[in-house]
Amino acid sequence: MQAKSTHHIAVAVNSVDEALATYQQLFGAVLEHRETVPEQGVDAATVMLGGNRIELLGATGPDTPVGKFLAKRGQGIHHIAFEVDDLRASLAELEAKGAQLIDTEPRRGLHGLEVAFIHPETSYGVLYELVTNAA
Amino acid sequence: MQAKSTHHIAVAVNSVDEALATYQQLFGAVLEHRETVPEQGVDAATVMLGGNRIELLGATGPDTPVGKFLAKRGQGIHHIAFEVDDLRASLAELEAKGAQLIDTEPRRGLHGLEVAFIHPETSYGVLYELVTNAA
Repeated sequence: MQAKSTHHIAVAVNSVDEALATYQQLFGAVLEHRETVPEQGVDAATVMLGGNRIELLGATGPDTPVGKFLAKRGQGIHHIAFEVDDLRASLAELEAKGAQLIDTEPRRGLHGLEVAFIHPETSYGVLYELVTNAA
Repeated sequence: MQAKSTHHIAVAVNSVDEALATYQQLFGAVLEHRETVPEQGVDAATVMLGGNRIELLGATGPDTPVGKFLAKRGQGIHHIAFEVDDLRASLAELEAKGAQLIDTEPRRGLHGLEVAFIHPETSYGVLYELVTNAA
């Protein structure tokens, strides 16, 4: 697998507005994009900080994937996303090498990207996402 | 605070050798540095992946900071480190703005860096480290 860049680091937070204000005021983070995607149960803001994109990830309700993560694990880093050129080829290679995948097929993520997640069992407790620009 | 770059993303693992082999084989990560620092209770390897440095962080024993983290939280992301030009000025600015700091003074970290940690209470569950090259 060839990760050409880090696309973003996602941090699950209880309130995106509050976290965004803190990241701007304390860390000098610069807001890039603010988006709520009700059908994914996600409220998100991306900021640039130290050359990386940090995605502040909130839930639109408790019965959403991020809402369940927050209830179980609390606030903190949710996943790290790498950008790859060919998502299908990367998934096939990872599967052939014995990686456990959450998504064996690309699916639609935020910002019109195609995404797939690698199971944290494979990556020592870290949830990695692979993303590519949808054709 | 001005984070000029992301210095590394640290992942706590039970076995650095095993995690390193997986990161190399599955993700094509490139080994940069391998170091054991007994006085800090740390066994570490840094790899480059997707333009970021990932620090695989193991413990030399259960009674070390990383050993206690692994026992309590399990494997996963431990902290994210940003590089700043002036660590003392950054800490003073953060403190003046009400941030909770673990280290109010720089201390010596791995690789001869000066480091300080921000309390995760301030940063929504994420442990951030600030690093600078020691003069």
